[in-house]
Amino acid sequence: MRLAELSERSGVSTATIKYYLREGLLPPGERLTATKAEYGEEHLRRLRLVRALIQVGRMPVATAREVLKSAEDESLSPHLRLGAAVWALPHGPGPDEGAPETARAREQADALLERLDWTHNQGAGDPSPAYRMLVEAIASLARLGYPHDTDHLLPYARLVSQLAVHELDVVETYDTPTEQIEASVALTVLYEPVLLSLRRLAQAGESSRRFDQA
Amino acid sequence: MRLAELSERSGVSTATIKYYLREGLLPPGERLTATKAEYGEEHLRRLRLVRALIQVGRMPVATAREVLKSAEDESLSPHLRLGAAVWALPHGPGPDEGAPETARAREQADALLERLDWTHNQGAGDPSPAYRMLVEAIASLARLGYPHDTDHLLPYARLVSQLAVHELDVVETYDTPTEQIEASVALTVLYEPVLLSLRRLAQAGESSRRFDQA
Repeated sequence: MRLAELSERSGVSTATIKYYLREGLLPPGERLTATKAEYGEEHLRRLRLVRALIQVGRMPVATAREVLKSAEDESLSPHLRLGAAVWALPHGPGPDEGAPETARAREQADALLERLDWTHNQGAGDPSPAYRMLVEAIASLARLGYPHDTDHLLPYARLVSQLAVHELDVVETYDTPTEQIEASVALTVLYEPVLLSLRRLAQAGESSRRFDQA
Repeated sequence: MRLAELSERSGVSTATIKYYLREGLLPPGERLTATKAEYGEEHLRRLRLVRALIQVGRMPVATAREVLKSAEDESLSPHLRLGAAVWALPHGPGPDEGAPETARAREQADALLERLDWTHNQGAGDPSPAYRMLVEAIASLARLGYPHDTDHLLPYARLVSQLAVHELDVVETYDTPTEQIEASVALTVLYEPVLLSLRRLAQAGESSRRFDQA
């Protein structure tokens, strides 16, 4: 398809598509003449992912480029490509290494992962951004005197474990490794607001059941 | 206790405590002399909540003040106080009323809540920020061509439903309605990064199990 059709089918203006092409967020089309290029379904798919990252994930262009670069590195295994792409997503703040709660929070995070038999999720080398974010979240709870022991964290971990099975089932409905990785990154970002908004609606319902004795 | 002790026990500097007092985030202590005041355990508790909102929730001072005002309105029932406080928390963006996907996304959100028998969570009047955030999340998925039907959303809703039972159990370990509401707001904010970081760790584990055939 030509640029105009790519714009129409994606709902992204031709000016924005040209900007994404210049910024390397979208691979170039197959050049037909000096001013015309042909685009394929893979451009349409990639464009959806770019919009998920930038418009919904509110990611800076440079971060989105890094996520996409990791996702398309075919020298890596699918698991590593996916891991590298998710690794490059923005995360909440990591722990303050100088804070007195951090060492203890790290022990608690490790105890939780061990209890769940998730230690292999972590791997060797640098801790992942998700692990660092978990340590900081536990340290914040500790610093502010709110419950943060394994018994309080386990229900969250068990539920997202079940969710991950469902999420990877959805990812596996896509055909090729590249499509699976693109969908996985997009769904990680796009389902975060689903999860957080439903959590608040569920809390409101439970609060009503307990406290609103009509 | 005096200001110095409040600072020491809370880990918040006296300058910051004075700023929170001026901004109305912390109720004034009991005045002893023109320059001295006495603070109680409720100040310590409130200070923890303020830090959860501002430092972890990254909320502007004006938003935090609005959340706290709702939480302490004793003319309301505990459920309404909690609801008002959570309502005032920052949420993701609401739906774009002009977008073609929005009406359909609202129908899908309503169908989901009906299927879950959560329609009472919503109540009459203005839709809650959490509901508006859900509609926008569904509209984004639709706009970008990712799965967003009830079958895909239900697993998220069912899991946060179970989580809400656990979360309200934790809230009920606090003694008074005011403490329960304060804890509930703090835990809503502080457990969001726990949930999101564990989700990514769980996905990494599941991805490894499926794609890393060693």
